[in-house]
Amino acid sequence: MDLEQLTREASPWLDASGPHSDLVLSTRVRLARNLVGVPFTHRARDEQLVSVLGAVERAAEGAAAFQRGGLLKMHELTPIDRQFLVERHLVSHELSDGARPRGLYVATGERLSIMVNEEDHLRLQALCSGFQLAEAWALAEHADEELEGALEYAFSDELGYLTACPTNVGTGMRASVLIHLPALVLTKQIDKVLKSIVQVGLAVRGLYGEGSQVMGNLFQISNQTTLGHSEQESVESLDRVSRQILDYEERARDVLMRDAKGQIEDKVWRAYGSLRYGRSMTSEEVINLCSAIRLGVALGFAGLPPLKALNELLVLTQPAHLTRRAGRELDAPERNVLRADLVRSHLERANYETGEGSRG
Amino acid sequence: MDLEQLTREASPWLDASGPHSDLVLSTRVRLARNLVGVPFTHRARDEQLVSVLGAVERAAEGAAAFQRGGLLKMHELTPIDRQFLVERHLVSHELSDGARPRGLYVATGERLSIMVNEEDHLRLQALCSGFQLAEAWALAEHADEELEGALEYAFSDELGYLTACPTNVGTGMRASVLIHLPALVLTKQIDKVLKSIVQVGLAVRGLYGEGSQVMGNLFQISNQTTLGHSEQESVESLDRVSRQILDYEERARDVLMRDAKGQIEDKVWRAYGSLRYGRSMTSEEVINLCSAIRLGVALGFAGLPPLKALNELLVLTQPAHLTRRAGRELDAPERNVLRADLVRSHLERANYETGEGSRG
Repeated sequence: MDLEQLTREASPWLDASGPHSDLVLSTRVRLARNLVGVPFTHRARDEQLVSVLGAVERAAEGAAAFQRGGLLKMHELTPIDRQFLVERHLVSHELSDGARPRGLYVATGERLSIMVNEEDHLRLQALCSGFQLAEAWALAEHADEELEGALEYAFSDELGYLTACPTNVGTGMRASVLIHLPALVLTKQIDKVLKSIVQVGLAVRGLYGEGSQVMGNLFQISNQTTLGHSEQESVESLDRVSRQILDYEERARDVLMRDAKGQIEDKVWRAYGSLRYGRSMTSEEVINLCSAIRLGVALGFAGLPPLKALNELLVLTQPAHLTRRAGRELDAPERNVLRADLVRSHLERANYETGEGSRG
Repeated sequence: MDLEQLTREASPWLDASGPHSDLVLSTRVRLARNLVGVPFTHRARDEQLVSVLGAVERAAEGAAAFQRGGLLKMHELTPIDRQFLVERHLVSHELSDGARPRGLYVATGERLSIMVNEEDHLRLQALCSGFQLAEAWALAEHADEELEGALEYAFSDELGYLTACPTNVGTGMRASVLIHLPALVLTKQIDKVLKSIVQVGLAVRGLYGEGSQVMGNLFQISNQTTLGHSEQESVESLDRVSRQILDYEERARDVLMRDAKGQIEDKVWRAYGSLRYGRSMTSEEVINLCSAIRLGVALGFAGLPPLKALNELLVLTQPAHLTRRAGRELDAPERNVLRADLVRSHLERANYETGEGSRG
């Protein structure tokens, strides 16, 4: 497989087709697994990692869940291409360093993938559009079972799956939802809500996971514990808390519409005006403008671009995506101009497709 | 005549049909005149002012230059209607106080008008689109000659026309051009240029004349002296200096296009995005956004609204214009919303008329 087989379009799980897509961009479940008899990645010799790559590739090729997928070897990719995969949420920063035999096995459609030789030998990931925790878990579990037919996982009857870092021992599972909470931010309730999320044992991160900054009012909420709870229990607990947050956010939106409708309309439409007509913009600005417009779409303002187009822009306007599209190295000012061009043509196309917006 | 006979559209001299309309919005010539045997306005009794009103009305009715015009009596108008006339540049703040018998005689098309019983008994005004000093002077001079057939002006062979304030004695003429100088502002040369204008004996004011703030990079440049120079000389001197300023501005625009084209495009198009999509805006913001877009039009950026639409917005979005359009009193937040609505529909119409812009 080469990178061209990954569509140059945005990832399909950003298509806003899933439930609650006005509030939740995506749901993700990842499972950490290691192979019996091979040291954990950071202790293993390169030839052991090469054999892990081979074993995972064969197992995935034999699994129906990964059909028409393929393996990308990190050390064979350019830094831009590795960054491109990070931007698509397929690869972590750790996997993308290119220094050791690491890989990404990715199924067509990008809903299922395996990072090979990240911190653990396997990091199996299922990604779904919108709020679909049960579905993402089922997808991951099914793929995991198929792989387990061909691979022998390190497992302890007492502890569960063994992982390089103790925080993942047990289920090895992390489930997360990427939630858009602009109204809680605007009504200044977000700190209180985030605090209560942490208090019930969940973690909050930004758009690009651990250590990433919160931008565009997008919060990734995930379970923290992998020991002492079944996968089912963790998923249900995250599901329950997420629904509560969605409820808070919806109430905050009602308050905004009641008390500050005019200001919100102005903010949303000006964001659209900037996104549609700006000639130079940073990716952070795109994310923030899309956040404001997303709120407008969710509030039912007619004539704005569809959520799908806004979700897609989050990924398509990232630096490596722009560089690959241009086919050459770009400096930051060039990228900012190309980014604005891309945004414009993307919104243009979205408008034609939906017949909306253009004369807003 | 009542106010409804003044079109609810913008003033025709804002139609950007005149020469150099990309740089000069309008040209104005006004003549201060007083009647023999009547004290100056601030010394006259009300019944004397009433007779001046009557005399001027009869004289204007008999003059071909003022055909299909009519007299509006300030004290018979509501404060909103008086403010409406100020916003149209037909009436000064002094004339609009409504306390004494004052009036405005205005010809259809608003190119010619007379303020009656302002500081002087007559303030005859000619307004032309674009840069047309000779034409505006000819228009005023011709109308003045017609009036002089019916009125006896206070005139001294030694000094010329006698006026209430010594600064107007002589020709009683003030000629001015309203120039748009965004590139001189952006390249930080404006202070130097304004200083040199003052040094050659001209005055610089804002959009609404004496004492008004400079907004939207619009500068009103006028002659100061009325004594010791003929009208012709004053007009020619203002013409010469204005052409020099236009030349500076054009050179500054060339520099901007050479050194900062990308930033200018971004600034211009974002201004258009805000103007086209904002849902609440102050009149100052409209003026500033129109200023940026004007620059883009002058630089040849395709897809922007025509200059005419931008000029018209300067007047149509003023508070009393909005209030008259709404037909009821408005508070500032209501006005800001109605202003944004008006801007949108005005740009919309301009786009349909020119077939431009909409999918910019």
